[in-house]
Amino acid sequence: MSKADLVILDCWVSPFCMRVKIALNEKGLQYEARPEDLFGGKSELLLNSNPIYKKVPVFLHDGKPLCESTVIVNYIDETWSSPPLLPPCSYGRAQAHFWADYIDKKLFDACGNIWRSKGEVPVEAKTEFISILKQLEGALGDKDYFNGATFGFVDIIAIALTSWFFAVEKIGGFTVADECPKFSSWMKRCLKRESVAKVIPDPEKVYEFVLMFRKMLGID
Amino acid sequence: MSKADLVILDCWVSPFCMRVKIALNEKGLQYEARPEDLFGGKSELLLNSNPIYKKVPVFLHDGKPLCESTVIVNYIDETWSSPPLLPPCSYGRAQAHFWADYIDKKLFDACGNIWRSKGEVPVEAKTEFISILKQLEGALGDKDYFNGATFGFVDIIAIALTSWFFAVEKIGGFTVADECPKFSSWMKRCLKRESVAKVIPDPEKVYEFVLMFRKMLGID
Repeated sequence: MSKADLVILDCWVSPFCMRVKIALNEKGLQYEARPEDLFGGKSELLLNSNPIYKKVPVFLHDGKPLCESTVIVNYIDETWSSPPLLPPCSYGRAQAHFWADYIDKKLFDACGNIWRSKGEVPVEAKTEFISILKQLEGALGDKDYFNGATFGFVDIIAIALTSWFFAVEKIGGFTVADECPKFSSWMKRCLKRESVAKVIPDPEKVYEFVLMFRKMLGID
Repeated sequence: MSKADLVILDCWVSPFCMRVKIALNEKGLQYEARPEDLFGGKSELLLNSNPIYKKVPVFLHDGKPLCESTVIVNYIDETWSSPPLLPPCSYGRAQAHFWADYIDKKLFDACGNIWRSKGEVPVEAKTEFISILKQLEGALGDKDYFNGATFGFVDIIAIALTSWFFAVEKIGGFTVADECPKFSSWMKRCLKRESVAKVIPDPEKVYEFVLMFRKMLGID
């Protein structure tokens, strides 16, 4: 397969783009990550490929567009079966889909409620964020990864969002390592994987981006 | 398979419960719909089976709990393959998942912004609701159902939510038939199916429930 067959319309700081890139790395697939200028003007290809949301990531497989990161990662797993990211049984897959959905519904907004806050971060925002991580610690249990012994679907969905945690910690005045040591250990375990490490940006750079973004949004 | 193997912790007026029941009907499966008293006190089984959200539907397959209606309908399709609800190819499945996700993210809240409104319904709430249906009309195109010629996954996810449309129309002062005739035709087509017709409640009863619920919430 030539490299040009798989294209991501990408943004380096988007956790949703990171998910797609990690999934492709896990499958050992070559792809072209084509950066989009989200502030300067989105490409025609992006606008035409994702007319509903007009957002990255868009994944183009032989020119056919797919949108929404969780849908894309599921598609990648169904299309290139080895190594599998989802469990082999339908019950295990349903549990993985449940937790991916939980993360999508809860964690991104909870991060935003901290880094987007004007003035001191409300206690409720921190409590909510920590309580979500505690629920995820419950789902992890004593396993190395969400599916069990091997890195998979839910790990990809979650680890990408942790790329903003350093910024969330700096702005929120707490550390995940102190509040949720088990989740923090899982994060370190995932970040050691080459598929993840080469996608997740330097936390300091994400923090700088968040500070710049806060200025753009008129928060600071 | 005995009837007791498949149990739904159910509420007659919940569109999310309706999705699960329609999917089981499509598969020709016998199940027990066990009503939950959501206002009087939820059962221990519900609280233990869905500790994260504590909501119906819970689907119990041989006692094993599954939560979140879209996850459950996907599980039902993976577990009982005939007749299929999702398309055979991974690209078709990804498109179905994309639209199911769109409906989950947009349509329920858009309904709520109308029926929950205090005083006159804001024009923006109506416009947003209609614009979502227009997007869905675009996805339908000239097809009978979202997947094409046969009733399937996205139809189930969407048709269940339309059970509240009569109430939304009465409170909002408009009709879907006037605003979105193509969507309205699709609704009528789906409602003719036995799997759907025996699950979707009388619109007048849903409307009465919504009026009662508005009083409970202190809106009226």
